[in-house]
Amino acid sequence: MAVVGASADTSKWGGDVAARLLRTETVRPVYLVNRKGGEIHGRTAYPSLSKLPEIPELVILAMPAAAFETTLDEALALGSKAFVALFAGLGETGRDGAERERLAAARLREAGALMIGPNCMGLTDHSTGLQAVAYLDVPPGAIGLVSQSGAMGEEFVARARAWGCGFSRYVTLGNQADVGIAEVLEAFVDHEPTRVVALYAEGLREGRRLAEAAARVVAAGRPVVLLAPGRSAAGARAARSHTGSLASSTAVLDAVCRATGILRVDSPRELFEATVALLDAPRPRGSRVAVITEGGGHGGIAADALEAAGLRVPAFGAALAGRLREALPGSAGTNPLDFALGTTEPDAYARALPLVAGADEVDAVFAVGQLGYWAARFPEHGELVAAEVKGAEAMAASARSAGKPLVVSTVYPDAAPAVRLRAAGVPVYREIASAVGALAALVCVVEARPSGVPHIPRPAASFERAPDYWQAREALAMAGVAVVEGRRVTGAGEALAAAQELGYPVALKALGLLHKSDAGAVALGLGDADALLAALADFEARLAPPACVVERMAARDEGIELIVGCRRDPLFGPVALVGFGGIYAELLQDTRTALAPLEASGAQTLLEELRAAPLLSGARGRGALDVAAAATAAAALSRFAAAHPEVEEVEVNPLLVLPSGALALDARIVLRAADDDALRADEEDA
Amino acid sequence: MAVVGASADTSKWGGDVAARLLRTETVRPVYLVNRKGGEIHGRTAYPSLSKLPEIPELVILAMPAAAFETTLDEALALGSKAFVALFAGLGETGRDGAERERLAAARLREAGALMIGPNCMGLTDHSTGLQAVAYLDVPPGAIGLVSQSGAMGEEFVARARAWGCGFSRYVTLGNQADVGIAEVLEAFVDHEPTRVVALYAEGLREGRRLAEAAARVVAAGRPVVLLAPGRSAAGARAARSHTGSLASSTAVLDAVCRATGILRVDSPRELFEATVALLDAPRPRGSRVAVITEGGGHGGIAADALEAAGLRVPAFGAALAGRLREALPGSAGTNPLDFALGTTEPDAYARALPLVAGADEVDAVFAVGQLGYWAARFPEHGELVAAEVKGAEAMAASARSAGKPLVVSTVYPDAAPAVRLRAAGVPVYREIASAVGALAALVCVVEARPSGVPHIPRPAASFERAPDYWQAREALAMAGVAVVEGRRVTGAGEALAAAQELGYPVALKALGLLHKSDAGAVALGLGDADALLAALADFEARLAPPACVVERMAARDEGIELIVGCRRDPLFGPVALVGFGGIYAELLQDTRTALAPLEASGAQTLLEELRAAPLLSGARGRGALDVAAAATAAAALSRFAAAHPEVEEVEVNPLLVLPSGALALDARIVLRAADDDALRADEEDA
Repeated sequence: MAVVGASADTSKWGGDVAARLLRTETVRPVYLVNRKGGEIHGRTAYPSLSKLPEIPELVILAMPAAAFETTLDEALALGSKAFVALFAGLGETGRDGAERERLAAARLREAGALMIGPNCMGLTDHSTGLQAVAYLDVPPGAIGLVSQSGAMGEEFVARARAWGCGFSRYVTLGNQADVGIAEVLEAFVDHEPTRVVALYAEGLREGRRLAEAAARVVAAGRPVVLLAPGRSAAGARAARSHTGSLASSTAVLDAVCRATGILRVDSPRELFEATVALLDAPRPRGSRVAVITEGGGHGGIAADALEAAGLRVPAFGAALAGRLREALPGSAGTNPLDFALGTTEPDAYARALPLVAGADEVDAVFAVGQLGYWAARFPEHGELVAAEVKGAEAMAASARSAGKPLVVSTVYPDAAPAVRLRAAGVPVYREIASAVGALAALVCVVEARPSGVPHIPRPAASFERAPDYWQAREALAMAGVAVVEGRRVTGAGEALAAAQELGYPVALKALGLLHKSDAGAVALGLGDADALLAALADFEARLAPPACVVERMAARDEGIELIVGCRRDPLFGPVALVGFGGIYAELLQDTRTALAPLEASGAQTLLEELRAAPLLSGARGRGALDVAAAATAAAALSRFAAAHPEVEEVEVNPLLVLPSGALALDARIVLRAADDDALRADEEDA
Repeated sequence: MAVVGASADTSKWGGDVAARLLRTETVRPVYLVNRKGGEIHGRTAYPSLSKLPEIPELVILAMPAAAFETTLDEALALGSKAFVALFAGLGETGRDGAERERLAAARLREAGALMIGPNCMGLTDHSTGLQAVAYLDVPPGAIGLVSQSGAMGEEFVARARAWGCGFSRYVTLGNQADVGIAEVLEAFVDHEPTRVVALYAEGLREGRRLAEAAARVVAAGRPVVLLAPGRSAAGARAARSHTGSLASSTAVLDAVCRATGILRVDSPRELFEATVALLDAPRPRGSRVAVITEGGGHGGIAADALEAAGLRVPAFGAALAGRLREALPGSAGTNPLDFALGTTEPDAYARALPLVAGADEVDAVFAVGQLGYWAARFPEHGELVAAEVKGAEAMAASARSAGKPLVVSTVYPDAAPAVRLRAAGVPVYREIASAVGALAALVCVVEARPSGVPHIPRPAASFERAPDYWQAREALAMAGVAVVEGRRVTGAGEALAAAQELGYPVALKALGLLHKSDAGAVALGLGDADALLAALADFEARLAPPACVVERMAARDEGIELIVGCRRDPLFGPVALVGFGGIYAELLQDTRTALAPLEASGAQTLLEELRAAPLLSGARGRGALDVAAAATAAAALSRFAAAHPEVEEVEVNPLLVLPSGALALDARIVLRAADDDALRADEEDA
């Protein structure tokens, strides 16, 4: 291994990483390179890579960005194949830096070499003994951490040290000029030493590849927990300025999580706590949590927090309640279970635990309150302290024998009983929110039913130019979307004939405009020939359209209007959207997003997941609508969009769902702008 | 002061509180009482209160519940006027205990005496030097804490000790047999030493009195922060089993908070952190937060969390952005502001702060990331550490001179720079959520516009028995609610005459049934005499109603259906509700609740706060509906309900809002069940 830019000043990256590598130097000899030569940390500093006694397998780049290309060329010429680029100042600074990264990545690929970074803090792989992280020693363990940000990685390590766990692999990726998150995730699929993968991502590349890799890691039994800023506009702005990456909309990222089984969290604390919960705890069979407390109000607050997180705190059945009242006289035997003892009987938790943990109606147990009170507050009461400690041991044993997760939150997380519980594998937290987050992570992972990452079909023949409304109608109809019957007409004669054939009332729509409604190019409910001719004359006077479409008026009163669409996400490619249309679109803000293309069954699930789905299934005395037909249309539209990489967006608004069938009453296809070509190429690679 | 049930065993309440009182004994002599006499903690233990050398002003009751009445009688006979009841085992155990509490409270009132508890942990008032808390020394300061739960109080004190703040008064209330939260709050209105009041409440009594007291405390410039479990069914169950108190619905409690300006939080951590934020920090003028970070992704996560909490992280204006780019070359000058420096320039925060804190477009500053990195991680780099510490001091000075809140969250909250900031009055947190909670508390308090607690009118003449539909219509019409025109009819002749007068189509409704629709006792849209007679014959055959109502059919298509109602909350009395009716009721779950009676302006505000309010104001091309008329009807209904304490619930569903006017199409008045009389009396007292 070689460090280029090695320095004697350990406050600099090149100084710290050199000193750190020398400290852990074992099988791999470490060479230091510094233009000025001399001696650093008691070792010879070589003036360049070519002067080293052997060719380095791994080169750590800690010199300034200005010397990047020269150093890389020299190393590639020597035959080095692996690089860790710590220096900053390229892609995150703007277009020029990004271009230099692109060129370097091409050179690396050509040479069959790999690079992590730049703008990263290095990596550690305890399974191979590789340690090349600046400013940090990474403790060994079973967490795989992948972080774009070195600072986030460092924070995670600080939490892990305090908790007493460690890492199988620790990888910071920075700007991902060459190696990206997707590639690192792929390497976790079969990585036995890793039990959970924690992922901090600001900007993603190779979206589909990443999603597929994550899905495989999850399927291999290694949960993936993701922290990704950008839920707010300001958060997305911040991510962009930090590593220069594009952010997907948060709805798309949530869709990726549903497809792959990734668990998404919202803060560094949650990232750590969910990861640790998934590391060791037995998996619950469901979301029914028993809350037990010695009394003092913590039980109610815990129950509120659990239910807000989507878990359940159901009342106990009569038999269990009876057994609890017997074991803990004075308690009401309900859930939350309040021993009504305050801290006076420190073994109460231990008496309650086997009963609740052993009950079939309980999937997990949350002990909340003041466990460890005497040890923390009044250590002079030795007997009470001893009873607390013994109780803690009994609690851990009960949970273990029941095979169910037990989490504890106490005002006294550092007292002896808490320490004893932790030593026995029971997580003990200071805050109720932490324990709730841990349980929620366990239940989410158990209840997730990843829908999988759909395959993108081979591209169909491209549109040469943007299709107008008539062409969009035709294309979607060909693709299998039922479109309201219509005729393309030029002039009054053709219009009247078409209306005659379709039957009044009809709609008239002018072609040649992108936003028909806004331009006043749509006339609905034309009841007779006079009305049709008047509308046509008006269009011709105002819009001079090349042609018009006459359509049969659909029975809007008999159905409900949906929106179905598909747009191209810059990172994850085609993404389908379904939601309520018409008056409901604005009111309900009720849409669902998923990776495209959809199967009809997947589309139907999305529709059924809409909050206002009861509208479709016969609420309010009306008969059920044909959700299956709507799903078929949405799926056909999404297949069409996925097979057309030149298409930016396809939308049918409204799709009228009827008691039998679903009919597109409008259609819009927008092509990508020309300067998106680079992105398109990228996607086709994947 | 006397402690009854004093004990030598300090693991018992009577032992701990006795020892603690003796340690802090100053102006008030402390006497110990124990049936067995002898000597305790080196003092004479008297066998009963009557044997004391003087009559105790304050008696601390730490004996078992069984001896309560005897002790109380003895003390009242002696002339003692104040009691702190630490013992448990009464109201929280069930009906018998509650009855004993009720009788004792009556005896206390009769004697002009007061009691805190039972089932409490005592109280401290540093403004009078009174300390009577079990198991705890309460540090002095400016927080007023009122907690039903001793355990929650104790947890709050532990957090306060760690933070370095303290209490003006510390009051635990337990079962509130006599003194309740309302009374304690009243004593804070003019309490100069108190700057913020933190309140933990499980069950409330005297709801209106409490709300009025809280409103007065808030109006006096002392924010009130409330933690109350019961948002979930399980949480409400837990609160009930802990102190035997009734819980209000969480929507009602939220309405009380809006009316009074109380800030409601969801966890002990939030209760503490919001309280501390409100203790010292300057008040922001608005919700625009500048986020500054040295880089590493924390900025984006912080921005997401701020916006999720309802704060704003707007982009900086061009002038400020330019100044920032000049001061911090490499940064994008946007918000969040990423210095793009990592930890390499420890004075970057101090350079950014005067610029952002001084800008008019910024109301508060959140510095987030790794502040204190060198001090915490590499203290050997003395120069960098010194620069960090100096930077921290400069940050505090900048914020002070700008007069705006600065909060800090860092991975290294215990390092020297953080300590220095805290000493200078800048709160420094470990978790992003804590800093966001603090800022949210400040903004909430500044932006709250409490609507006030409405006055309940004098009772009107009571209904002797439950009014039927016709009587309900008449009563509401009299009260000022516009009701659709109708006639009470008996037999076909009267029905036909009424329909003739009103004009077809008409509706026919059978009287004598509580749930008309469920019983099939409503026939709508009867277009002619035949249809009316058929419906009447059907009703008579099936339901044999004493009479029917014939009503004009309203033009439902021209308006939107609302629900307006008022029900009697067991704690807070009449509570008004407005929401969307018809198909929207189910779909939108969109209702607003407020303390009744409403003014028309208040009712209009509630209607305008509905999520789907755009439906009323002319969305979707339709003209605006008469929201003012709907508000007038809701206000009239709520005044009616408030003036009828014998009424449990009044509901108009639907109230049809039209382009001009609003018309009740139905009306329902439900009286209270007889066994609610005790509650009613309670409320009338208040």
